[in-house]
Amino acid sequence: MNERPSVIPALHHIPPGIQCAQDYEALADRFIPAPAHAYIAGGSGQEATLRANLAAFDGIGIAPRLLRDVTAGHTRVKLLGRELRHPVLLAPVAFQTLAHPGGEIETARAADATDSCLVASTLSSFPLEDIARATRGDKWFQLYFQPRRESTLDLVRRAEAAGFGALVVTVDASVQSPSLRARRAGFRMPDDVRPANLQHHVQPGQVTLSGGQSLIFQGLMSEAPTWDDLAWIMGQTALPVLVKGVLHADDAHALQAMGVAGLVVSNHGGRTLDGIPASLKALPRIREAVGAGYPLLLDSGIRGGSDIFKALALGADAVMIGRLQVYALAVAGALGVAHLVKLLREELELCMALAGCPTPADITPAFIER
Amino acid sequence: MNERPSVIPALHHIPPGIQCAQDYEALADRFIPAPAHAYIAGGSGQEATLRANLAAFDGIGIAPRLLRDVTAGHTRVKLLGRELRHPVLLAPVAFQTLAHPGGEIETARAADATDSCLVASTLSSFPLEDIARATRGDKWFQLYFQPRRESTLDLVRRAEAAGFGALVVTVDASVQSPSLRARRAGFRMPDDVRPANLQHHVQPGQVTLSGGQSLIFQGLMSEAPTWDDLAWIMGQTALPVLVKGVLHADDAHALQAMGVAGLVVSNHGGRTLDGIPASLKALPRIREAVGAGYPLLLDSGIRGGSDIFKALALGADAVMIGRLQVYALAVAGALGVAHLVKLLREELELCMALAGCPTPADITPAFIER
Amino acid sequence: MNERPSVIPALHHIPPGIQCAQDYEALADRFIPAPAHAYIAGGSGQEATLRANLAAFDGIGIAPRLLRDVTAGHTRVKLLGRELRHPVLLAPVAFQTLAHPGGEIETARAADATDSCLVASTLSSFPLEDIARATRGDKWFQLYFQPRRESTLDLVRRAEAAGFGALVVTVDASVQSPSLRARRAGFRMPDDVRPANLQHHVQPGQVTLSGGQSLIFQGLMSEAPTWDDLAWIMGQTALPVLVKGVLHADDAHALQAMGVAGLVVSNHGGRTLDGIPASLKALPRIREAVGAGYPLLLDSGIRGGSDIFKALALGADAVMIGRLQVYALAVAGALGVAHLVKLLREELELCMALAGCPTPADITPAFIER
Amino acid sequence: MNERPSVIPALHHIPPGIQCAQDYEALADRFIPAPAHAYIAGGSGQEATLRANLAAFDGIGIAPRLLRDVTAGHTRVKLLGRELRHPVLLAPVAFQTLAHPGGEIETARAADATDSCLVASTLSSFPLEDIARATRGDKWFQLYFQPRRESTLDLVRRAEAAGFGALVVTVDASVQSPSLRARRAGFRMPDDVRPANLQHHVQPGQVTLSGGQSLIFQGLMSEAPTWDDLAWIMGQTALPVLVKGVLHADDAHALQAMGVAGLVVSNHGGRTLDGIPASLKALPRIREAVGAGYPLLLDSGIRGGSDIFKALALGADAVMIGRLQVYALAVAGALGVAHLVKLLREELELCMALAGCPTPADITPAFIER
Repeated sequence: MNERPSVIPALHHIPPGIQCAQDYEALADRFIPAPAHAYIAGGSGQEATLRANLAAFDGIGIAPRLLRDVTAGHTRVKLLGRELRHPVLLAPVAFQTLAHPGGEIETARAADATDSCLVASTLSSFPLEDIARATRGDKWFQLYFQPRRESTLDLVRRAEAAGFGALVVTVDASVQSPSLRARRAGFRMPDDVRPANLQHHVQPGQVTLSGGQSLIFQGLMSEAPTWDDLAWIMGQTALPVLVKGVLHADDAHALQAMGVAGLVVSNHGGRTLDGIPASLKALPRIREAVGAGYPLLLDSGIRGGSDIFKALALGADAVMIGRLQVYALAVAGALGVAHLVKLLREELELCMALAGCPTPADITPAFIER
Repeated sequence: MNERPSVIPALHHIPPGIQCAQDYEALADRFIPAPAHAYIAGGSGQEATLRANLAAFDGIGIAPRLLRDVTAGHTRVKLLGRELRHPVLLAPVAFQTLAHPGGEIETARAADATDSCLVASTLSSFPLEDIARATRGDKWFQLYFQPRRESTLDLVRRAEAAGFGALVVTVDASVQSPSLRARRAGFRMPDDVRPANLQHHVQPGQVTLSGGQSLIFQGLMSEAPTWDDLAWIMGQTALPVLVKGVLHADDAHALQAMGVAGLVVSNHGGRTLDGIPASLKALPRIREAVGAGYPLLLDSGIRGGSDIFKALALGADAVMIGRLQVYALAVAGALGVAHLVKLLREELELCMALAGCPTPADITPAFIER
Repeated sequence: MNERPSVIPALHHIPPGIQCAQDYEALADRFIPAPAHAYIAGGSGQEATLRANLAAFDGIGIAPRLLRDVTAGHTRVKLLGRELRHPVLLAPVAFQTLAHPGGEIETARAADATDSCLVASTLSSFPLEDIARATRGDKWFQLYFQPRRESTLDLVRRAEAAGFGALVVTVDASVQSPSLRARRAGFRMPDDVRPANLQHHVQPGQVTLSGGQSLIFQGLMSEAPTWDDLAWIMGQTALPVLVKGVLHADDAHALQAMGVAGLVVSNHGGRTLDGIPASLKALPRIREAVGAGYPLLLDSGIRGGSDIFKALALGADAVMIGRLQVYALAVAGALGVAHLVKLLREELELCMALAGCPTPADITPAFIER
Repeated sequence: MNERPSVIPALHHIPPGIQCAQDYEALADRFIPAPAHAYIAGGSGQEATLRANLAAFDGIGIAPRLLRDVTAGHTRVKLLGRELRHPVLLAPVAFQTLAHPGGEIETARAADATDSCLVASTLSSFPLEDIARATRGDKWFQLYFQPRRESTLDLVRRAEAAGFGALVVTVDASVQSPSLRARRAGFRMPDDVRPANLQHHVQPGQVTLSGGQSLIFQGLMSEAPTWDDLAWIMGQTALPVLVKGVLHADDAHALQAMGVAGLVVSNHGGRTLDGIPASLKALPRIREAVGAGYPLLLDSGIRGGSDIFKALALGADAVMIGRLQVYALAVAGALGVAHLVKLLREELELCMALAGCPTPADITPAFIER
């Protein structure tokens, strides 16, 4: 199953059936081999969190207001001192060549074309420098801590040099393995899909466990970052550091207190611990914990423009798009991702217009139906 | 797909399978071409609001009382100083020739035959004057603001001249496009279905957008009415002006305060912004906001007589029937619509009788099961 | 469809597949013609109340207690000064020859064999005198008010003479017609199924309605009983009078205050007004309204012994079994009904034993899981 | 149906499709004859409690914390003064030769290999002495009261002599019979499956019931244990006595007060009275009733490591695994059960690591998502 079965190669045009952003999801399984599709689409465990992410949006209504003048409307948001044209960020999805041979380079070109802030993954299929060159717009670098601090620091220095404007440290995925769905579909990472950023780093040797020690606690988790690691990396760079994977208000408050520049409320798209809450559900209490004005992004579960509206209403400054991005990439490469962003933005604008909100700043909890 | 496929022409009798008002819904797809049926039946987005409209009625119970004398019972209601025989109004559905070649004329004849108050749409397939002539009963004119105020005013003047007794200004549908369902079914408005009332009006030129401007905010919404526009039109006519599309108590209160004659609580049958609340859910807090005695109508989601009972119990003075009207029109023209009204009225009367409410005024929140 | 299609005649033995009381429901459609089965099984309208009756039991849990001595356990209950062997009453189901040629006579024999209190319907297929002769046990007569008081009084006098020990006046079904389900299945009452008790009574002439009068209010409801009618009949008989069809606490209180001997909390098995609450849901507040010690029965929705336990825990002194009775009658006549009662009683006893309740009096709200 | 149909014999290796503990459930029906599988898998009545056990876990979320150091993590728990390597106990499932010819001996070997505390059933297919010899680890003996006290005492003496460290008295299954599902599948206990521990005991004669006596109350329940019986057995042994089958806080409190050493919160896997609450739902109020530090185990519904995490968070010190144990036994004998325990332990460890809990003592209600 390691060989990719024959599937449709990515198109060079937008297929006629795409009527809304979510349509890329329905189409994607014809463009991605089944095992890889299972790897991308699946969530951990019984996928309760995966389902909860979607259900959380469905469970929240919008309370529109009438007759408001929105002709001066726009979607601009300020984040980390920068003005973004719109609040749709491209999430740091790993190994994008699973979906398209052009991988992250195509994605970056779409970001460039749509003025989208790109977040490049540590585990990208192409070197971060190549990705950085492919977009003139805002770009952040997502950082996974490496087994050795020198490796971690090397990644940071390269990101700084390549012009990334912020670091996004992911802290909720210390142990990663393909989901049950992916394993049942026979997924194995293809031999030619490798973490390009890490190829010159010495990989850590196997942990040697003594009798009675746990593969989890004394093995895999021995490389997981702690509060000390986070403080260390913040001391090594002048870049703003955001933390991704936050769901608990107390953690959010502690991170803010130690100088973290912003948070990404996320459950990793339901790909880490099954049973944890939907990101959207965690968002309001995190906004309450950090107060107004502190940068918060929402990741996991966005499937359309009204989802973005709901996230903004419940406290997010912007959102990250993960799976939809990969699906659009698989269908039509850079063109697909750019089209996806355009659709999401139009859907958001239509939602804002019909709800009576000319700008993102107008989208407050008052527009959520209780 | 623009040509209509072969479907059953409207009957000249009531088909034997019709046992209740809702049965017209089940039958209609044999009388309407599939794309047009999708256009009529569909709701916006993922149709969450469309489903919510129905679920809201199902989620509410009736608390009946025993042994009451209802032999003096009736369904008469007072609205805008007029006494209506029953609280079932025919909603202003656009382009009724999509369902039946006789379109709004047939509907008006049914209104005439059943003493139903008819609400004619700006976007009718026949001129408002022809529609007005087809019914001797109460009739109101639904007004969409036009790109130019002179066009809007011309419509009002014609409605006044034709004998319409009130204006119903729709304010929740500034941007309209066929639903995803309709687009996926290949719906395009047939060439011979045109807004008869607007054929002599100059259509606005294309909006020219400069770089960075939004098709939504600076484009389509530039023609959307605002509070000022509403105040202006109220100053131009002696007709009572109702506003249709209200869901928020604060908007309801503001509209009442500016002299609007009554409100139609409506989410446009789930056809505008997906994710907004069911009309029925919004109704009680709007009644609370405007107080007793102020005219309120409920639109969206009525499928039978007990739904009308529930709407009246939660604060409505009357209801509007949209999709069912079109379905009955497609099945049997004026005869079908008249039969539909008869069924709805009988179902309402039976519900009132069994619940112990002889008149609409007796239907209070006390008859709702908590 | 008025002729009965070929179906399996009732057996003279218990079929092997019957493992629990509810199994009679699954089997019955092979023993009853489809239209008649639809008539028996169906509920009014969209059958929301029919479904709610069952869901109400499913939604309530049992809180068992441990290690209690139940060896002196029994199922005896006191009702109207009589001791019944068990709290399972056979509900007054009309026209039982629809299910079995022996109809109510078979049912009465089963009551006799199982010490069950039988409630004979006004609309029985056999004369009440014949039914009374078929059981030596407790029996009550269910009374529908007739168009003329002399007819009603005649029924009461015959019930008194035949030895019925109480009257159960049904007040929630003033307008009755086959359900949508029954009409869609083509049900018409077979010509040979007639109300035996009423054959010598003059049927009322057609009501003549003047213009604008309602078939419901001025027509059908002109024969519905009112508070005055109930008071009148109570003055005509020394028999205790119970009222069936009560769902509202205020009605319950008023009925108790006027001297009614007991109430049957019932929504007529979901066969009258669709949308009214489940009987079980109404039960606790009615018990609260009438206080301890006042006779209350629960009808509608019982499908097994644990349902009886739940009803008793929530305030009922006994329950009535409707549809299951008819299903068992169809499958195996008197034998089937007797077996059904035996199963229900065993299921109840097992539930009591495992919950730690030796007698019905021990089954209090404390045994309901919150 | 008493003959076992041809099914796959237990494997001597772990089948490749097993990715998580619950996968043994999906595989088991190929290794167990259909009637026996129905007997094992089924629950009593309509299986509401069976479903509730699973739904209770699904309905509870986990609230993870970030960046915590778990490298000193472990799964050790203290119970009855002993330290167990992990909180996964093998529940006392009866008649394990239904699933595998090696039955309880295989299970005991798996307990031995995985340092799991084994709970042997009174109704084991092999003598308790043989089971005890098959594992060097902790073992408890589950006791059903026998019709005669001398038989019960004999079991206790044998358990003491065989080295069992505690008695687990089951009190919630005084009446046992195959479920509806099992009966419908034609299950009868095979002739060669017998309670090995009881073969030398005189079985009680049939209870003779006099007229009007109940098979349940005066028959089957005459042998059910009461509070006095429990006090008696506690006076006969120096072994700690736990009670299994507790769901009510008042019972828990009373048992603690009389000196019971610990409780197993259990509804017998949904196999006794249908309609009683999920074990997990009952757990928090029982912990509240007995206070901190008192031994509590949770039984019924565990299907994976995160379920164990949730049980510990809500007050359990350890859990018992019933059906999954039998399924793994059927698939691969001792090897399967050992693998199951390994999977459950790894899943628990992964859940603890990702939630930020290094030890069981760290798993508090604060980690439950509200």
